[in-house]
Amino acid sequence: MRLITADMLEDLAVGAAVLGTGGGGDPYIGKLLAQAAIEEFGPVRMLRLEEVADATWVAACGGMGAPTIVIEKTPAGDELDAAFAAYESAAGRRVEAIIAFEAGGMNSMAPILAAARRNVPLLDADGMGRAFPRLEMETFNVYGVDANPLAVADEHGNVVVIKARNSALSEWFARAVTIRMGGQSWVVNYGMDGATARRVSVPGTMSLALGIGATLREARAAHRDPIDDLVAFFATTHYKRAVLMESGKIVDVERFTKDGWAMGSATIVPFDRRRAPVTVTIQNEYLLARTAERMLAIVPDLICILDFDTATPITTERLRYGQRVNLLAVQTPPIMRTEAALAVFGPRCFGLDHDYSPIAGLRRWDE
Amino acid sequence: MRLITADMLEDLAVGAAVLGTGGGGDPYIGKLLAQAAIEEFGPVRMLRLEEVADATWVAACGGMGAPTIVIEKTPAGDELDAAFAAYESAAGRRVEAIIAFEAGGMNSMAPILAAARRNVPLLDADGMGRAFPRLEMETFNVYGVDANPLAVADEHGNVVVIKARNSALSEWFARAVTIRMGGQSWVVNYGMDGATARRVSVPGTMSLALGIGATLREARAAHRDPIDDLVAFFATTHYKRAVLMESGKIVDVERFTKDGWAMGSATIVPFDRRRAPVTVTIQNEYLLARTAERMLAIVPDLICILDFDTATPITTERLRYGQRVNLLAVQTPPIMRTEAALAVFGPRCFGLDHDYSPIAGLRRWDE
Repeated sequence: MRLITADMLEDLAVGAAVLGTGGGGDPYIGKLLAQAAIEEFGPVRMLRLEEVADATWVAACGGMGAPTIVIEKTPAGDELDAAFAAYESAAGRRVEAIIAFEAGGMNSMAPILAAARRNVPLLDADGMGRAFPRLEMETFNVYGVDANPLAVADEHGNVVVIKARNSALSEWFARAVTIRMGGQSWVVNYGMDGATARRVSVPGTMSLALGIGATLREARAAHRDPIDDLVAFFATTHYKRAVLMESGKIVDVERFTKDGWAMGSATIVPFDRRRAPVTVTIQNEYLLARTAERMLAIVPDLICILDFDTATPITTERLRYGQRVNLLAVQTPPIMRTEAALAVFGPRCFGLDHDYSPIAGLRRWDE
Repeated sequence: MRLITADMLEDLAVGAAVLGTGGGGDPYIGKLLAQAAIEEFGPVRMLRLEEVADATWVAACGGMGAPTIVIEKTPAGDELDAAFAAYESAAGRRVEAIIAFEAGGMNSMAPILAAARRNVPLLDADGMGRAFPRLEMETFNVYGVDANPLAVADEHGNVVVIKARNSALSEWFARAVTIRMGGQSWVVNYGMDGATARRVSVPGTMSLALGIGATLREARAAHRDPIDDLVAFFATTHYKRAVLMESGKIVDVERFTKDGWAMGSATIVPFDRRRAPVTVTIQNEYLLARTAERMLAIVPDLICILDFDTATPITTERLRYGQRVNLLAVQTPPIMRTEAALAVFGPRCFGLDHDYSPIAGLRRWDE
């Protein structure tokens, strides 16, 4: 058991935003919300998967919708209460522990906020090991847990409970409701017992996020290159391999909201002008990085855009022309690269016309 | 109490389709479904509003979506079971009597089918006194009953329960879900006690539909003009005034599905070529009949297109080029023309740039 206190949230939010690969919502807004909850309700107990009892009822929670909208529709902090109440009533069970459905700036914070408000522990794990744009893209779903019943609530007190035939249909209906809630909503789903959670979750992602955040903070304090430290840190984790793919300037950002997702692309022109520009494809998250000639990295591996000087992760909705950035790729852990997993969140699940190809062969361009 | 037996369904379906003003779903498919239910589960007890006990828990039910789709997505008959189960669980009450949320070909039959399957009485009333395209356009809502909780189900076992802040928002979310259910779904909503149902419902609409159906059938059998008999029959009811506005041929039908509704228009060229063509505006129902020069009738008054020879009502999805038709307008009863009612289902609620104007001044063109 580890206690999450307010002073840890900055590291956690930054680290989760790195794992969020541009998605998972704004870490700054998420941090403020979690901070307020911990100040009011006290620190949150975080359990490793091995520590959760077999029979403990676990549910996942987080924000759903286009992260572009959260910035304008700032949450009050109690939006998840209605979703939990509706979930518990529909499932006929009290939620005794909370798990993040994804690791992302906002969506690592929302479960902390909920755990603090409800006085239940948080699990050190999640269902994506990163952020993905769709709620069926969960290791929970890949390994046999149903997203239903799913409760979705907005800030006006509207609540919808979905019992669909499978997790993908649950996402299908919840997305339609979320769009009509103004493009952003709050969700509780994937109820399961502790023994199941242990089997189907990506372990240790909250600790991992804390470690990423601490690594970047300490590197900056020591005036070391934070990217070097970050690559070294990943080597000590089950993600293992991180590669700096490019450094350059954002010259083009195309962004639009479609079917409830933040879509678009960004182009990075390398500082070394002899090198080819890199285009990054966005669907809430960064899904594909490629030059005209070759693919650099593709989902489910992590594609992260970090501020060139500070290594602060930049979420898709904060991308701007002229930003100087590092483009980092991180290999995802084995549980996320099985055939079953790639069938649910491999490149073709996003309409990308590529097979998954691990980044393991890539090297930093200036090495 | 009156018993609804299978042999009454033809009259009821035809009469309700007249009240449906082109909407409310296909009477033929509805009749077959109700017939099968009565054959399997026995006749349905129909109570007048005065006969329902104050404390009896009443809920409304019917089909939601574009009627164009029901023809292709023929229901099996048990779709409402899941919606009732979800409604009862969400409301924490057993439904002891059923009311139609609209009088329409399908939506007068669905409550009969449900009443038969569940062995509960049906009320001789509805919440629209006709058909309307939106679930908040109910006298229930006008006079203070909330549509929530609302349960919506499809034929695949997907069920969604909505608890929105008001009836219009409930429609807003249910419509999005219905669109994703393939454009057609089954709904239970507007829970209320018997005393309330008495106060907020349009009384006698099931009997009225039976009377309309019988009138048309008997006129045909006696080789009388069914329109004359129909106008005479309406004069004996609380709808009172019906007017034959035009007789002619359908020369143009524009139809498309937009935001989950069957939209479009139809043009009738009078047999008397000296008279101006009439255009009828469609949003699931016939909402407005006008020539280039003047308005003939407008929602919430009923606009009915009937086969010229048989007076069979033609629903919007069955309109075809070349059909010879009578265009009938019927004044709606007082409960549907109050200021409160027009604020919920007056012309401007449909985006029509007209105020309501009663048909009372109009006369049959050849009189």
